[in-house]
Amino acid sequence: MNTCNECEHLTLSMELMADHIKNIAQRLDKESIKKTIEYIMDADSIFIMGAGRSGLVGKAFAMRLMHLGFKSYVVGESTTPAVHKNDVVIAISGSGETRSVSDLGRIAKDIGATLITVTSNRDSTLGHISDATLEIHGRSKEDAGGYLERHMRGEYSHLTPLGTSFEISSLVFLDALVAELIFITGASEADLKSRHTKLE
Amino acid sequence: MNTCNECEHLTLSMELMADHIKNIAQRLDKESIKKTIEYIMDADSIFIMGAGRSGLVGKAFAMRLMHLGFKSYVVGESTTPAVHKNDVVIAISGSGETRSVSDLGRIAKDIGATLITVTSNRDSTLGHISDATLEIHGRSKEDAGGYLERHMRGEYSHLTPLGTSFEISSLVFLDALVAELIFITGASEADLKSRHTKLE
Amino acid sequence: MNTCNECEHLTLSMELMADHIKNIAQRLDKESIKKTIEYIMDADSIFIMGAGRSGLVGKAFAMRLMHLGFKSYVVGESTTPAVHKNDVVIAISGSGETRSVSDLGRIAKDIGATLITVTSNRDSTLGHISDATLEIHGRSKEDAGGYLERHMRGEYSHLTPLGTSFEISSLVFLDALVAELIFITGASEADLKSRHTKLE
Amino acid sequence: MNTCNECEHLTLSMELMADHIKNIAQRLDKESIKKTIEYIMDADSIFIMGAGRSGLVGKAFAMRLMHLGFKSYVVGESTTPAVHKNDVVIAISGSGETRSVSDLGRIAKDIGATLITVTSNRDSTLGHISDATLEIHGRSKEDAGGYLERHMRGEYSHLTPLGTSFEISSLVFLDALVAELIFITGASEADLKSRHTKLE
Repeated sequence: MNTCNECEHLTLSMELMADHIKNIAQRLDKESIKKTIEYIMDADSIFIMGAGRSGLVGKAFAMRLMHLGFKSYVVGESTTPAVHKNDVVIAISGSGETRSVSDLGRIAKDIGATLITVTSNRDSTLGHISDATLEIHGRSKEDAGGYLERHMRGEYSHLTPLGTSFEISSLVFLDALVAELIFITGASEADLKSRHTKLE
Repeated sequence: MNTCNECEHLTLSMELMADHIKNIAQRLDKESIKKTIEYIMDADSIFIMGAGRSGLVGKAFAMRLMHLGFKSYVVGESTTPAVHKNDVVIAISGSGETRSVSDLGRIAKDIGATLITVTSNRDSTLGHISDATLEIHGRSKEDAGGYLERHMRGEYSHLTPLGTSFEISSLVFLDALVAELIFITGASEADLKSRHTKLE
Repeated sequence: MNTCNECEHLTLSMELMADHIKNIAQRLDKESIKKTIEYIMDADSIFIMGAGRSGLVGKAFAMRLMHLGFKSYVVGESTTPAVHKNDVVIAISGSGETRSVSDLGRIAKDIGATLITVTSNRDSTLGHISDATLEIHGRSKEDAGGYLERHMRGEYSHLTPLGTSFEISSLVFLDALVAELIFITGASEADLKSRHTKLE
Repeated sequence: MNTCNECEHLTLSMELMADHIKNIAQRLDKESIKKTIEYIMDADSIFIMGAGRSGLVGKAFAMRLMHLGFKSYVVGESTTPAVHKNDVVIAISGSGETRSVSDLGRIAKDIGATLITVTSNRDSTLGHISDATLEIHGRSKEDAGGYLERHMRGEYSHLTPLGTSFEISSLVFLDALVAELIFITGASEADLKSRHTKLE
């Protein structure tokens, strides 16, 4: 038949994601967030990097920083300049072990830049070398036990393939960080619009 | 002071997003979803397109379709081939009016391909020419009236800058569509991993 | 056998390309080049755009402008800001008719920015609306008549598929423009190296 | 004055590039080219990778392979699948030492794929681990001694900043390889056009 009837996997998947986001919101490490905001506010430029879908999350975040008036760049894009001492480099890596990203993290540290990592795994290569680590809790047994989920138990493994949940939750987290930065900088919707690209 | 204290805008922003996702999950148009799944299952190739942050959401979705074993491409990437009659083109556009995307949507229809649009605005240029329209409800006055939000009322406008919420909710929706496709195709985590790129 | 023996199509193709580049170098319109250099030197920011392989040539040029110390951006990359009145937008389009590029060219003109087009076809949509048009002559019957080429006549059509020659010749031209800009700005190899990205 | 008068650096730079291309064409290693063509003709899929401007050259080449009907992918793009044993991976690196590229080259070899490197430096990390090395000679003292160049001697260093010449010459070489592949596969201009993307 090749389609869904009530499409309940789809609905359930969205509801589990929503629950997971709430759970993360309640477990945030405020000290790391405060340090991160200070680093960002004081940086000359902010560089974002990540591989695969985490790289896409990074691009979405870098775009918002630019809208807010920060000098932000995505590592690997055409006109991204060299990193200097007073810059902040933000790595996004669920495992904290993505080889290409941790190699660049080490180079950023050698240059003397500040390294921040968004990860599900604080106890990782990137976590260890970072000046601040923003931990986004992955889905664990404990927070996976809600009613809806128990209802569907057998097919649970279908619902969060390949770490999807880290990428979505880090995107939600980083956009929420932008909301906080908007409040701090006092940027208005009008400011943001004036920097929004007209060529796309 | 240039940082947050309790970082309540950040936490609140995440909680509002979670509520919004639940709200969308309850208002999905199942008929359009069923048609979309049929189109995807029957397509020769699937092409995804979007501008700005919607384009990034599209790339994240295209990646997952490839992991699932579908022939999927992002419009504008280097080795994306020409579109043919038996292909499906999926446009992602909050407003449904993004000029470059709707122009390409029209070309896709001229070629004879199937056009699907993910949008907050069914009644738009893209909505009107599409074979299926997947509407992702934007935040409206009604669903913006919860306790937390009323509590913060004055700063409400800070919390969803420039349509952020469409991009996150469409990403959550499309990943949930992937969960449904995994169920239908019977793909296992092992299948997905074998197609996951080893070069990144 | 599925390989070449003397690989003479390869060698000949390179030699024809070299002859073609020399031919272009002798037919450059100096007045347009001088205007272009003035526009670039006076611009706040420089935006580059192009579709397909012309887009790649644009990225390579934008990268060099950044190395030289100019604020340069590629239209469509993540952190590219909005275009303003004192900016220069450079379009690269062999035909001068690429729809998405000419649409953006018109928007750039509406904003009040300066538009420069690199094209093989001065008498085109982009050519007509540009403040300066840098014409890169395509291969014509006259300059395609050298000894080697006549020797190979029957297979001539194999050697310049789909406008390859415009992309290569515009890349050679734009890198030569960079050589001129290096001379004018007095940038040294050391300056360039200091801006070269260390993260890649 | 901030512009050129006769723009002779520009013209000279193009002429030197043309001479350099001719020089390379006469010094090609036919055996490596023949092996490369055999590997490409026999591959399941062909993956291209490179950093910075070499990466752009790789994308331009990957696009042409797709037009010719090969299954080609750029490492790092959204829907690029995993590499397998019967695939060919082509690395583009002037120095042959670009860290991220050589790391991936090693992984490709571990998987059992065939590795081909386009480089100016055969005696390099990538050169040593490759199944075929396509050497593109850089500009040396010997071939830099023509009349025009001696005439300009003092400013010679302005004319080939940061390895520009490798990227252009590898693009010219790879497009010439495409000309050879068109001859071998018997692809016509019409075939190429039918695969050329209509969405851009």
